[in-house]
Formats: sequence, structure tokens, C-alpha cells
Amino acid sequence: MKPKNPSDSRTIMTDLVLPSETNPLNNLFGGELLARMDRAASIAARRHSRRITVTASVNHVAFNHAVPLGSVLTVEAAVSRAFNTSMEVYIDVWMEDRYNGNRSKANEAIYTFVAVDESGKPTEVPPIEPVTDLEKERFAAALRRKQLSLVLAGKMKPNEATELRALFMGG
Amino acid sequence: MKPKNPSDSRTIMTDLVLPSETNPLNNLFGGELLARMDRAASIAARRHSRRITVTASVNHVAFNHAVPLGSVLTVEAAVSRAFNTSMEVYIDVWMEDRYNGNRSKANEAIYTFVAVDESGKPTEVPPIEPVTDLEKERFAAALRRKQLSLVLAGKMKPNEATELRALFMGG
Amino acid sequence: MKPKNPSDSRTIMTDLVLPSETNPLNNLFGGELLARMDRAASIAARRHSRRITVTASVNHVAFNHAVPLGSVLTVEAAVSRAFNTSMEVYIDVWMEDRYNGNRSKANEAIYTFVAVDESGKPTEVPPIEPVTDLEKERFAAALRRKQLSLVLAGKMKPNEATELRALFMGG
Amino acid sequence: MKPKNPSDSRTIMTDLVLPSETNPLNNLFGGELLARMDRAASIAARRHSRRITVTASVNHVAFNHAVPLGSVLTVEAAVSRAFNTSMEVYIDVWMEDRYNGNRSKANEAIYTFVAVDESGKPTEVPPIEPVTDLEKERFAAALRRKQLSLVLAGKMKPNEATELRALFMGG
Amino acid sequence: MKPKNPSDSRTIMTDLVLPSETNPLNNLFGGELLARMDRAASIAARRHSRRITVTASVNHVAFNHAVPLGSVLTVEAAVSRAFNTSMEVYIDVWMEDRYNGNRSKANEAIYTFVAVDESGKPTEVPPIEPVTDLEKERFAAALRRKQLSLVLAGKMKPNEATELRALFMGG
Amino acid sequence: MKPKNPSDSRTIMTDLVLPSETNPLNNLFGGELLARMDRAASIAARRHSRRITVTASVNHVAFNHAVPLGSVLTVEAAVSRAFNTSMEVYIDVWMEDRYNGNRSKANEAIYTFVAVDESGKPTEVPPIEPVTDLEKERFAAALRRKQLSLVLAGKMKPNEATELRALFMGG
Repeated sequence: MKPKNPSDSRTIMTDLVLPSETNPLNNLFGGELLARMDRAASIAARRHSRRITVTASVNHVAFNHAVPLGSVLTVEAAVSRAFNTSMEVYIDVWMEDRYNGNRSKANEAIYTFVAVDESGKPTEVPPIEPVTDLEKERFAAALRRKQLSLVLAGKMKPNEATELRALFMGG
Repeated sequence: MKPKNPSDSRTIMTDLVLPSETNPLNNLFGGELLARMDRAASIAARRHSRRITVTASVNHVAFNHAVPLGSVLTVEAAVSRAFNTSMEVYIDVWMEDRYNGNRSKANEAIYTFVAVDESGKPTEVPPIEPVTDLEKERFAAALRRKQLSLVLAGKMKPNEATELRALFMGG
Repeated sequence: MKPKNPSDSRTIMTDLVLPSETNPLNNLFGGELLARMDRAASIAARRHSRRITVTASVNHVAFNHAVPLGSVLTVEAAVSRAFNTSMEVYIDVWMEDRYNGNRSKANEAIYTFVAVDESGKPTEVPPIEPVTDLEKERFAAALRRKQLSLVLAGKMKPNEATELRALFMGG
Repeated sequence: MKPKNPSDSRTIMTDLVLPSETNPLNNLFGGELLARMDRAASIAARRHSRRITVTASVNHVAFNHAVPLGSVLTVEAAVSRAFNTSMEVYIDVWMEDRYNGNRSKANEAIYTFVAVDESGKPTEVPPIEPVTDLEKERFAAALRRKQLSLVLAGKMKPNEATELRALFMGG
Repeated sequence: MKPKNPSDSRTIMTDLVLPSETNPLNNLFGGELLARMDRAASIAARRHSRRITVTASVNHVAFNHAVPLGSVLTVEAAVSRAFNTSMEVYIDVWMEDRYNGNRSKANEAIYTFVAVDESGKPTEVPPIEPVTDLEKERFAAALRRKQLSLVLAGKMKPNEATELRALFMGG
Repeated sequence: MKPKNPSDSRTIMTDLVLPSETNPLNNLFGGELLARMDRAASIAARRHSRRITVTASVNHVAFNHAVPLGSVLTVEAAVSRAFNTSMEVYIDVWMEDRYNGNRSKANEAIYTFVAVDESGKPTEVPPIEPVTDLEKERFAAALRRKQLSLVLAGKMKPNEATELRALFMGG
């Protein structure tokens, strides 16, 4: 299949943070952010594959910045690497200061999706050809993440995960 | 502070899967499941700490079982270990066959919450004293997960994460 | 059909009270509580019958305790008695104090469900065998409630409702 | 206070039945209907009292007619009788055949509301002066229902509920 | 087809303004009001035509009055004129002062709907016969609005829109 | 105030069409599209003004293309011209074919917003400096639309709306 660029699947979902999505401190619930990111990422995966896509996994996500009620939140998702029938989607989340408009990073996350046909059977997707430096960096890191995922699932032995192992050997 | 058992915070959230939560294959969106688990886990964290709690992170989650429209889904959350101001919450998700009532595991996830006061400042929480074998196992593993989280965040050197490192050294 | 215990159908639905469910005093709308209880009770009825279940009626419900925004609310439902194709479901609602965790009774309600097949035709359900004292008491009272329901619907003459009548005879 | 007529508080809420409100047979959940009726009735109670109103109770409700997805449903609520600080609201629910437009009774229900001030303290409401035959009939019956409610709550002895008792004495 | 009166399709949708529908000033979002009006108007169009109806257009709408959180809002819609397969629906929106009950005009809008069969093909609808003075006035104006709509869509030359043109000729 | 370009306020809101937003033909309700466009446009207006913004009006909108359930819908909004305290926002709506990914125009709309301070009082906004040809064309047309709006509101005499009048004079 003909390769595609991450920009072919780039998906931007800008929306307000509403009262029914906030916790007692009037900040966005972590779970609501996870749900928005899933929706944006599933659209990116569909744009890359032109198939029905289902969430296979979400990587570790840390919530370091509170997102207050009434914020404008922008979720940007793009496929960072494809593996046969699955796609890693990298998601950047930005929030804007209501008054001066300054934009700051609110979060990052990495979801994996599988492309399926109408009966739910996995189907092949095009490979990714990264263009920018950031896309190339994420493309390379996606392989290490894939290895970690296989190790954690018991489908790869830790000492076979060559690049990943180096991280923990200190050498 | 006086220790508490995981069962003191156990939270059960049983509910139906509704049409507005499903994808084109009529299965629950991964993101909606992440949001439900976050809500159940935040209640467990509140029950343990009696404080406002905010999501700090969610561990890697794999979605291996589709949850069809109309399913009865049970999300069970309990604090598995406490660390000063943070709590790891372990979540088990079960689905029931509509006709024979067989209950099967639909998912597992691990969220971390921080207890805060009304101004959002972190406050201490009681330690956990595990009771059952499963609770003891999850309590022990929580330390390794904490180390992995610190390593991934660059707050601990990989070779200081003693137990975690053993996993990748093969001895 | 083989009898079942009320605990076989026990359904626990714990969730937060969100801003979109509250009235101008920031307390849960009565109607939203009725909807949550219906959902929990319908799951209990399905667990007892393993059929599609539809709400047949809800008994008189009094709202004596306000449930504030941000409360943790637990709805517990279990089938208390079965009558051929219908089931009485008894529902207990608990709320927790956000700070000291004290749990208090917020409400009680009794719904009746009918089990139906895919075409909507009523189908037989297993009988109930109560175990605990509370279950036995509710099982016995369910018969009187059934009689009252039949009397109010004009399907039973008041003087045939033996147990019910005694209540009003004062002797 | 100056009496008001039931028509002064009449509230009409016409709306569609949407997919997120329906059960596996594609009919409106009983609980969703209870929630709609509560919202319409609370507006009627507010129109009568010009106060904040909170649901005090809902009488026994039977669900005898399925309301299919896509139906036009009309909920009509009006205060039928006032008692010092509380109001009985009588609710009629109509559904329309999508094709021939025939309107049929889908349900009836009776809710009781209390008028309160900003601090939640009950406050007096105007009396009701029924005008039409139907309004007069409902006004009279409201007293018997009030007695039944007091008896069931243990606040009135059965033999003091004069009119109610007659129903069960058979003369 | 036999003509119908506007009152045959009159649809009243009274409901509260809830927190999830309000902007940072705690007033109803314009877009939420547009959505409510569309739902009420589509029911009016269905009542007139007894067909599935789809929104064809909405005329210019000005939002001159803020509608605060907690308001009782009444949307009244009725078909004002029919044109072969389309219907103009005139919508009046009223809000009530929470304390003194005074009712004031919050908005007006004009939507156009097309009646379609199950396959989405437009089908004929009955003509309108206006009865009251207001209905007659709106019926007459509907023709000018139809012309404006055709001119704006490039389907009628401005100088053929006889009545409309007079407005801008100043004589 | 320093002028801004339309691209400074450009807002992209991509999202799926969900079951609770669709009519009996399984297409997006017109009213739901109007609500989404209002939310995107209000964010664009806020980005231009860095103020709270409230919807002042929406121009005539035609719904010429059905948007099926499950579609990916992209709403793009940008301020096209500013007038003292108000802003015209031009909105383009695109839908994608699920299979071949072809993108087609689903709709266009024009909303006007007013910038206000915390007390709701209108405040000045920066002027717009259009850059691209399309932006210049929309900037110029915005003045004619402003005139039409003033004429329709009775705040400008038709013969003073110089450019607008020409349209209907045929020369």
C-alpha cells in the first residue's frame, strides 16, 4: 500500500470545557479528557486507514496541568507509525489562557488503534512516511513503545526488546 | 494516620452501555470506558482519603474485549496502595452475557490520584494495609509501577529502580 | 424454574451527582434519581430473569433527603419477589458525607418489571427464595403491595385483599 | 393568598423520544419518562407558587403503554390542589401516531412539590380553585391521596382517614 | 389535499435552562436555543404533514435577550405557510421571570422544513388556511420570505421578487 | 487596537456524528449543526477579542446536504470582519466520505458575536485585516450583510444601504 504522511491524518478538535465535565475544583475530569482524546485519535486513525477503527490501547498518561471550566481546549491527533493492521496515534493537547490567549501544552498521549472490516476482522493499513523532525522522532520512538507493549503483554521476552533494554541497562 | 484496607474504598459502578457511547460496530468506545473507570476510581480515592481527589495518571490500558451496546458493565475500583499524598487505584471491569448471565473480565486498569485540599494543594492520605492474597499482590506490584512511572518521568534513574530493573536484566 | 436468591440479582450503581442533574438549590432533581433507580432496577430484573425487562410500575416514592451536587450516591437494587412474569425490585439509595464518609439512607423505592421476549411478549421468571431477615420481610410485604396495586388498578376487590384490608380495619 | 386556577400553572412539554433514552426494545425507558414528568411538574409548581420548588414525592405510576423511539411525546402538568406549603401536580402524558397523528394517552402521574425559599425553608403557596369538571374531580381526589400518603408515612392513623377508609370497608 | 390551520400543528415545548447549556455569563448559548427551536419546529412540521420532516433552512435570527440559567423557557412553533413539499414554521420563544412570573418575548425565528418519505424523497403537504389576524399576517409575509430565499440562492432574479423589491425601492 | 488576521482566530472542530444527534433518517439534525457551529464560532470570536463573547445573530442558513450518522464533520470558523464591539464569524462545514476520504462542503454559515466584559457590557475589539483573496471577499461582503441586518432590524433605511440596494435595483 502507498505510504501516507502523518499530516494526512492530522485531526484538530477544539472545544470548550463545559460544567458537566468538571470535578469539584472546577477542572476538567481526567476521564473526560481521555474520552475526547480517544474520539480525536479514532478519527485520525480512520483518516489514515479509511476503515472502521477500534481502540486497542492507550499508553501511560500523566495529568500534570489542570484544565479549568470554560477553557478552550485543542486536541491534535495524527498517526505517528503504522504496523501492519495497527496504528499508533500521537496526541497533543493545548489549552489557551482566556484573557491573553497564550497557548500552553496541557497534555500528551499515545493511543493505538486497529483497522477492521465490517465484521470486525483486522485489515492492513498503509505505512507511515514521517516528514518533519518531530514526526521522525515520534516514528522512531514508536518502535520502542511497540516493544514495551509486547513485553508488558508477555508477547516478547524483555531481552529481545533490543532498544528498550538499553534504556534500563545504563549502557 | 490509621491504615485502611482496600475494601474500605471498594466502589462498584454497574450500568448499561447506551447508544450514544458506541462506535460504528455498536461496541463501547474505548474513551467512554476510560471515562467511566476514572469516575469510579476517583470515588474510591475519595473514600480512602476523604478529600477532593484529582487524576494524576492512568497506566497503559489494553482493550482486548469488545463491549456490545446494551451490555451490563460493572466497574470495580479499590485503592491498592497509598504513597504519602497519592493513591494507586486498581480497576476491574466485568461484562455479563445478556442471556446466560456469564460474567467475564472485560478490562483492567490502574489510575493514580492525588488528594488535595480546597485550594488544590496535595495533602497526606492514610496508608493501605492489604488483606487478601490478591490485595497483597497488587500492593507489592504497585511499588514497581511507581518506580516505572518515576523513571518514565525522568525523576528516578533506571538503575535505582531496583525491582523494576530485574525484570529487564533477565536475572 | 429453579428459585433464585435476592443476592443473585443485587446491583450496585455508585456515581457522582453532576451539575446537569441539579436544581436551583444545587440538589439532585427528584426525577434524575427516579431515572437512576429505574436503570439499576432494570439491571437487577435482568439478572434475575436473564430476559429483556420493561418497567411496569413504580410505587409511591417520597423524597425526604436532599442530595447535594458532588455527592457520592449509591443505588442498590435487588429482586424482592417474583410473580409469574413480573418482578418486584426493592431499591435502597445511600449518600456519603464528603468529609467524614458517613453513609446515610437517602431514599428507598420499589419498582415492578415484566420480563419479555424479543417480540415484547411476557415470559415466565424464576421464583424468589429470600434468605436474610430483611429479604424475608420484604418478600412478605411484596404480596400486600401486589394486592394494593391490583386494588388501585380495579383488578381486585378491596375486600379480597385480605392482608391489606387488615391494615385499614384497625382490628 | 389569592387563589389560582389549575390553568394558571398548566405546563406543556412536547419533545421527541431520542435513541439515548430507549431500552433494547427501542421504547422509552420508564425512568426517563419519570424524569421528564418531574421536570414538567416542577415548572407547573413554580408557576403556581413563584418559588423554588423541590420534589416531595411521586405517587404510584403504572407504565401500560410502550412509547417507541421517534415518538412525539407531550407531557402536560398542572397543580391540582395546594396544601399550605405543598402542591399536588397532576400530569397527563400523550403520544402521537407518527403517520395518522392520532393522539392517545400514554400515562398519568401525580407528583407532590414543596415551595421553599433560597435557604430551603418551606413557604406558603396560594390555594387552588378548580374550574372545569375534571379539575374539580382531581381537586377532591387530591384530599384522599393526601390522607393515603399520611397514613403510609405513619403520620395519620388509618381510621382517621375518613374518605380513604370507606374504600376498603366496602361500605 | 385538505387545508389545515396553523393551530393544527402548534407545538409547545416548555423546559428549564440547565447548567450544561450556558455560557460563561450563565446565559443560554445561542446555539442551544437554535437546537431547541429546530426540535420544536420539526414536530410542528410533522404534525402538519404527518411525514418525516428535515430542516431545509433557518432564517436570520437575532439574539436580543439573554436567557439566564434556571429560566423557564417556552418555545411555541406552528406552520405558517406551506409550499408544495415545504413548510415555513414560525417560532415564538418566551421566558418567565422566576419571581413575579412575568412572561416576555425572548426570541422569534423562522425555519423551513421539507416533508420526505422513508427514502428521503420530498412529498406533497397540505396547504395552510390562516385563521387569526396574526396567522394571516405571517402567512402573507411567508411569501416575501420565500422570494428572498430564492433570490439569495440565485434561483429567482431580484426584479421578479415583486413584493420584496418594493421594500428596497422606497416606493 | 492592533488589527488581526482571520487566521489568528481560525478554529477547527472535528468530531463524529453520534446517534443522539440524528433524525429518523439517521442524518444529523439541523439544530445540532447550528449548535456546533455556534460553539466553534464563539471560540473564534473569543480568540479574536480575548473577551467573553455572546451570540448576537445567525444569518440565513440553508441545509442542502444530509450528514449521515457516523460521519466525520469538520467545522471551521474564523472572524471575517469586526465592527467596533461586534464580529462577523464565517463558518465552513466539511464532511468526509467514510471510505474514500473525499471531503465535501456540507454547509456554510455566518454568525455575529458581541464582545462583553464580566458585567455583560459590550467592549471594543481589534479590526480585521484580511490577507487571502477569500478573506478579502468575505471582508467586503460582511459590510453588505451588516447593512441588510440593520435594515431588517429597522435601524437603517433601505435607501441608505447603498451597496445592498444596488442588488435589488438591477443597476
